[in-house]
Amino acid sequence: MSSPLFTDLYQLTMMQGYWKHGLHTQEAVFDLYFRKLPYRGGFAVWAGLGPALEMLETLHFGDADLSYLDTLGLFQPAFLDALRGWKFSARVTAFPEGSAVFPHEPLLTVRGPLWEAQLVETALLNTLNFQTLVATKAARCVLAAEASPHGGQVIEFGARRAQGPDGALSAARAAFVGGAVGTSDVEAARRFGLPAVGTHAHAWVESFPDELTAFRAYAELYPDSTTLLLDTVDTLRSGLPNALTVARELRERGHELRGVRLDSGDLAYLSCRIRSAFDEADFRDVKIVASNDLSESVIASVIAEGGRVDTYGVGTQLVTAGGEGGGALGGVFKLASLGGVPRMKLTGEPGKSSLPGEKRVWRGTDDEGLYALDALTLGDVPRAGDRVSDPTNPLRFSRLSEGLTWHEAHALVMEGGKRTVPGEALPTVQLRARAELARLPAGTRRPLNPHLYRVGLGDDVAALREQVAEGLRAHTKA
Amino acid sequence: MSSPLFTDLYQLTMMQGYWKHGLHTQEAVFDLYFRKLPYRGGFAVWAGLGPALEMLETLHFGDADLSYLDTLGLFQPAFLDALRGWKFSARVTAFPEGSAVFPHEPLLTVRGPLWEAQLVETALLNTLNFQTLVATKAARCVLAAEASPHGGQVIEFGARRAQGPDGALSAARAAFVGGAVGTSDVEAARRFGLPAVGTHAHAWVESFPDELTAFRAYAELYPDSTTLLLDTVDTLRSGLPNALTVARELRERGHELRGVRLDSGDLAYLSCRIRSAFDEADFRDVKIVASNDLSESVIASVIAEGGRVDTYGVGTQLVTAGGEGGGALGGVFKLASLGGVPRMKLTGEPGKSSLPGEKRVWRGTDDEGLYALDALTLGDVPRAGDRVSDPTNPLRFSRLSEGLTWHEAHALVMEGGKRTVPGEALPTVQLRARAELARLPAGTRRPLNPHLYRVGLGDDVAALREQVAEGLRAHTKA
Repeated sequence: MSSPLFTDLYQLTMMQGYWKHGLHTQEAVFDLYFRKLPYRGGFAVWAGLGPALEMLETLHFGDADLSYLDTLGLFQPAFLDALRGWKFSARVTAFPEGSAVFPHEPLLTVRGPLWEAQLVETALLNTLNFQTLVATKAARCVLAAEASPHGGQVIEFGARRAQGPDGALSAARAAFVGGAVGTSDVEAARRFGLPAVGTHAHAWVESFPDELTAFRAYAELYPDSTTLLLDTVDTLRSGLPNALTVARELRERGHELRGVRLDSGDLAYLSCRIRSAFDEADFRDVKIVASNDLSESVIASVIAEGGRVDTYGVGTQLVTAGGEGGGALGGVFKLASLGGVPRMKLTGEPGKSSLPGEKRVWRGTDDEGLYALDALTLGDVPRAGDRVSDPTNPLRFSRLSEGLTWHEAHALVMEGGKRTVPGEALPTVQLRARAELARLPAGTRRPLNPHLYRVGLGDDVAALREQVAEGLRAHTKA
Repeated sequence: MSSPLFTDLYQLTMMQGYWKHGLHTQEAVFDLYFRKLPYRGGFAVWAGLGPALEMLETLHFGDADLSYLDTLGLFQPAFLDALRGWKFSARVTAFPEGSAVFPHEPLLTVRGPLWEAQLVETALLNTLNFQTLVATKAARCVLAAEASPHGGQVIEFGARRAQGPDGALSAARAAFVGGAVGTSDVEAARRFGLPAVGTHAHAWVESFPDELTAFRAYAELYPDSTTLLLDTVDTLRSGLPNALTVARELRERGHELRGVRLDSGDLAYLSCRIRSAFDEADFRDVKIVASNDLSESVIASVIAEGGRVDTYGVGTQLVTAGGEGGGALGGVFKLASLGGVPRMKLTGEPGKSSLPGEKRVWRGTDDEGLYALDALTLGDVPRAGDRVSDPTNPLRFSRLSEGLTWHEAHALVMEGGKRTVPGEALPTVQLRARAELARLPAGTRRPLNPHLYRVGLGDDVAALREQVAEGLRAHTKA
């Protein structure tokens, strides 16, 4: 989707206004950030940067776009002419895709002409909000699955329940970033180079005279990659014995049944029964796949009860980012500076005020190599003894301890509207996400009531915010 | 999205199996239905039919699709050759788009070659699940807004929080079906011919020396269509007095301020204060727009407290189908008959068994013109005295009363893979949805704990289900 019209109408009406007042080429700095972690969790996995940068690089107004805008009766011909030459020429810094990220810190910063940044707000937020949300959900599911003493993995099964076709595609990509090992969505697999995975459906069994005949037919066709769905008739009394029969027949022919899938019933109980049955018959490598409205909490409860699921096919809850605090990431894109002058939105709700000025984002690592906290400053690297305060509560502050190593969290990813680095392969991004989660304080990975990773404002940022807010209040009535 | 690869991998592996066994051209009947109403509500608004049929009509396998499938190592060359000639040639009946629909009744029925129906399952479910979910949410918001003694309307503001770019587009379309009067998403407005609507952002105000200057600049540029955002600095102490000043200046020049927007704070309280201020200054036509994470329940509470909002800009909650029981509609697509023989999935969970046989869907209307209940039969129109039973509980049944008029709910929409009727204009669909909701029993429209509209199985359907289930059980082990 790189239509320049994939934006909110007000971006275009404001752009005309900036253009009219000669403000459109003023250098603006916008920060993209969110205020609240999804799922009541302790971290988010930053995803969608690759597609977002690709969109920025290719965006332009074609004749059809301009003709349509002309029909709205809002735009002057000279402005539409000016749009003909519009392109994205700004500088962009951002966390590398796959990073662990936290509330109130800039995740991506655009510095460039005001009307460029304004246009791309909607599409940037759309892409980055959703992919970050789904990558985070995937990571939570993968952490839950890997907590099993027997190991466990997650595959993405959600195309039919996703929010639109692209909801499915974006979700498959983001799920992979968050650690899913494959997708059932063939188009997503093609487009992003992901492993395509699948079993068979109930309709397959119903299309044959009986379940055993259906199982045999599938195994004959896919002797090395068959996963049989057990619950079309009755999981333990029909699906399981028939699958055992087919496993034996396959072995006689020199093949091995790959797995079986459970799609209803008590997954903890059934997976144990099925594991025992296959183990007793010496089919220890047959994998048990489970599906049926799974989520990180269902996965955790299956494992807590000793369930023996090897692969969780997570669909609806993953691709729609379900669960408390899910559904949407409330990322925003806020003006921090214009023409070198710091800007902010004040509002009556403390948590909704923005942070003025062009900030640098620092990540502090302790002597064990774990991330300790992030700090925002207007320039300098943080030092031991510096004061940092809570972004939403200036009364809460602390001093930075000794022994922290600081690195700048943002990388330069675009200069003059062109990517400074080639697009990253998704397995690289997936590996980064995995490494990042391993470097978080353990309590931060807890699914509920986690340890809250700290993001602190350096005194220079806090002082600037106070000063800009004062200036704004000076204009209000008593 | 009309890629034939926008499907689950197992559809393609099953298709190869059907083809291998000569089953692929057997006549199959598949029903699309859901089991549970979203949002704990009493109705759903059926949406997405137009795009779904368009997808079916154009679907085919191109060279690039087949080359990709070849790389998966699962498909035989002769099968891939056969796919080259694949097209959708089936017959489709469905509820007209915009109809009020209920759990367990077929919403769309495909009758045609098995491998055609199997391929399209994923894309059909994706489109129809999501659009039905969002149209239903929109209808709930519109019902809430219209309950105000002063009237109220809903616009869709969600592009930045939607689940992917197409999540935004599909949501804008579906929100319109459910009664939203416009969208902020310009691409959606273009593609679907919807009214594009918008105000301005905080960044506009921050780009000028002060709020009044910013308001004046916007009003000068859009003298007849300006809606001013009041909360960049302070809603009542800065935004409101500045907006009043601009309203007066506009009137002096022969124009009228269109509206103001609230985006934070106590919407009920603030809208009353603002309404009074504009009314006292004789600006009775200035509309109050509210945004900030609205939902049907927030709208209802604003109205219950006497709030004076005219237009609700609903974003996140609408386009992501937020709230309890939202996020995804669990629609399924189940084989009901193959080669003339009824089929069903049994499973251990009673609510998850499917209904075998090719069914007809009847809607009964009472003598006041209100919908009374729906009934499924294998053929005949229901008659007074006929018994109908609950689809999930055979022990619950009742007899159809006198005085009901029955009409067949499905229309023929495709024959031989071609639409039998031209695509409908969206305003027509929106009007149908509105008329349908007006014909529901009032309690059905209640947002929570609604009256549950009944869908009953005729005795012929119930008996067939029992008979097919018996046949399946005969194959299970004791």
